Amino acid sequence: MRGAVLHAPRDIRVEKRDDPKISAPTDAVIRMAATCVCGSDLWPYRGIEAVNGPAPMGHEYVGIVEEVGSEVRSIKPGQFVIGSFFASDNTCEICQAGYQSSCVHREYVGAGGAQAEHLRVPLADGTLVATPEIPSNDLVPSLLAASDVLGTGWFGAVAADVRPGKTVAVVGDGAVGLLAVLAARQLGAERIIAMSRHEPRQKLAIEFGATDIVTERGVEGVAKIKELTGGLGAHSVIEAVGTQESMMQAIRATRPGGHVGYVGVAHGVELPGEELFFSHVHLHGGPAPVRRFLPELIDLIYNRDIDPGRVFDLTLPLDQAAEGYRAMDERRAIKALLRP
Amino acid sequence: MRGAVLHAPRDIRVEKRDDPKISAPTDAVIRMAATCVCGSDLWPYRGIEAVNGPAPMGHEYVGIVEEVGSEVRSIKPGQFVIGSFFASDNTCEICQAGYQSSCVHREYVGAGGAQAEHLRVPLADGTLVATPEIPSNDLVPSLLAASDVLGTGWFGAVAADVRPGKTVAVVGDGAVGLLAVLAARQLGAERIIAMSRHEPRQKLAIEFGATDIVTERGVEGVAKIKELTGGLGAHSVIEAVGTQESMMQAIRATRPGGHVGYVGVAHGVELPGEELFFSHVHLHGGPAPVRRFLPELIDLIYNRDIDPGRVFDLTLPLDQAAEGYRAMDERRAIKALLRP
Repeated sequence: MRGAVLHAPRDIRVEKRDDPKISAPTDAVIRMAATCVCGSDLWPYRGIEAVNGPAPMGHEYVGIVEEVGSEVRSIKPGQFVIGSFFASDNTCEICQAGYQSSCVHREYVGAGGAQAEHLRVPLADGTLVATPEIPSNDLVPSLLAASDVLGTGWFGAVAADVRPGKTVAVVGDGAVGLLAVLAARQLGAERIIAMSRHEPRQKLAIEFGATDIVTERGVEGVAKIKELTGGLGAHSVIEAVGTQESMMQAIRATRPGGHVGYVGVAHGVELPGEELFFSHVHLHGGPAPVRRFLPELIDLIYNRDIDPGRVFDLTLPLDQAAEGYRAMDERRAIKALLRP
Repeated sequence: MRGAVLHAPRDIRVEKRDDPKISAPTDAVIRMAATCVCGSDLWPYRGIEAVNGPAPMGHEYVGIVEEVGSEVRSIKPGQFVIGSFFASDNTCEICQAGYQSSCVHREYVGAGGAQAEHLRVPLADGTLVATPEIPSNDLVPSLLAASDVLGTGWFGAVAADVRPGKTVAVVGDGAVGLLAVLAARQLGAERIIAMSRHEPRQKLAIEFGATDIVTERGVEGVAKIKELTGGLGAHSVIEAVGTQESMMQAIRATRPGGHVGYVGVAHGVELPGEELFFSHVHLHGGPAPVRRFLPELIDLIYNRDIDPGRVFDLTLPLDQAAEGYRAMDERRAIKALLRP
């Protein structure tokens, strides 16, 4: 099969790779309907995360089940399925508490490289959720978004305790930040402040439900959020970047007793204990337990209540994956969908 | 009046100070029934926090109202009252959300030095809670504990989301840690693991409701908590020290999706963002909003459901405050009560 491989920073090649096989009796192999490039793929692409030899890329996927292992019970060949970047048994105590991305048996599905024609998914019964039928083509981008960025934005909003009537700020205008806006709207927030200085993203944020746009960053951004919230800060702030600056911006924009939900994969972040102590915020986040939310998100998509697939503003054949990376790196595209 | 003043590290003197006066119309002045030395007083006493000139000490107090300002409505002279270290209006949006220690009008009561015969309490109506009548003498230590260490331990347990049936670990065996054990018991925890290597404190922890004692610290302490919790970690961990080691011990002893409630005043703590991200814990804490809990705690004490005053294992006249500091510094005493 063909799949995208990162050889060195900014060197993505779509090349021949071995076909994945069932290697454990709980595995499934799927044929990809669509996959995409994630903001977190840009960390190694930019060389900020080390690249140690050629690495198959991608961890977002929807597709048709081709084959299942002998112990797979609920997932069947021919089903259209969605899963998350972490495989989970969905039965252990941690999964049952809703933290499938910390499942005691978790495996990183992305190790197999989802930017490819086929993918092995471990723990298929716990990991994959089948749609009611084969979806129409126009639903595929939204279902693909549910595999990661929608589920991650949604977890950010839940981790930030977004509730009806509350004021929410979102730090980060990538696909996750934009879908955190959508999640906050669905969860009933009254006021949703998107922090973005990029016009097409501001526009999408407003379409997803943002009521205010703040273009300032850092100290000025925090001052602006305070100004918009009677000097107190937002009830809930969702952090969707993962840098020191964005984390501090999120913490400082939150009122005492408020909640920060952080889902940007932390890179080089050190939180000052004294400031955090006196900030009185709640802090929660981490790798989103997307599996927790998948059934609900699939329902919302099937009912056409939400259209998260709009974050894909670039669609390319898999063979042009390199252009997808470049467009996202240069912020010409929010998110690139790849068709195998 | 006489009051304790810190002149330099380890140099506490009880000396003549000016009598406090009503300086704002919302003030009260109280005559101290009892006061005490706090673990946090040891930071400047030990020179870890800078001492800039003579500083009146103490922020824990119970006493009789002597005088109130012209705008004080609910608090009356002659009442026996308890308050917290932060004065709060108890009406602003932050107070109403339960975060009185971040009240928009908060003032640090301890600035007046509660280890003294009299104390000015700002925002008396919002800050002070009167007991149903003048309490019998044997209740005074427990009511004094409610002023800070009980309220702080209680907040730690609430911040750590302690619930019926859950497993709780407590890092720190000072008065706050011990009273966090008591709080966890009251909040219905099934298993309460006290981390302590000091025999008299282990004993009190068990009397307060601890079911297990772990003497190991750091990496070994975390391993022991994991061993006691099926490899997963505790549901809730209360941090009551405030050092880098104790914070990391608390975070690492918590299961994914679990809660860390931290109430030890952070000193030199830097939290590694990546580890925190992948830990999946909830983190909440800060200066306890003791005022939130005071009515409930006073009820529990009056009904003799709890006896938090047992943390005072040394009682001295105010004039011997220096010996109270020494005994706590050398860990000869858990907590020293001072009688003016």
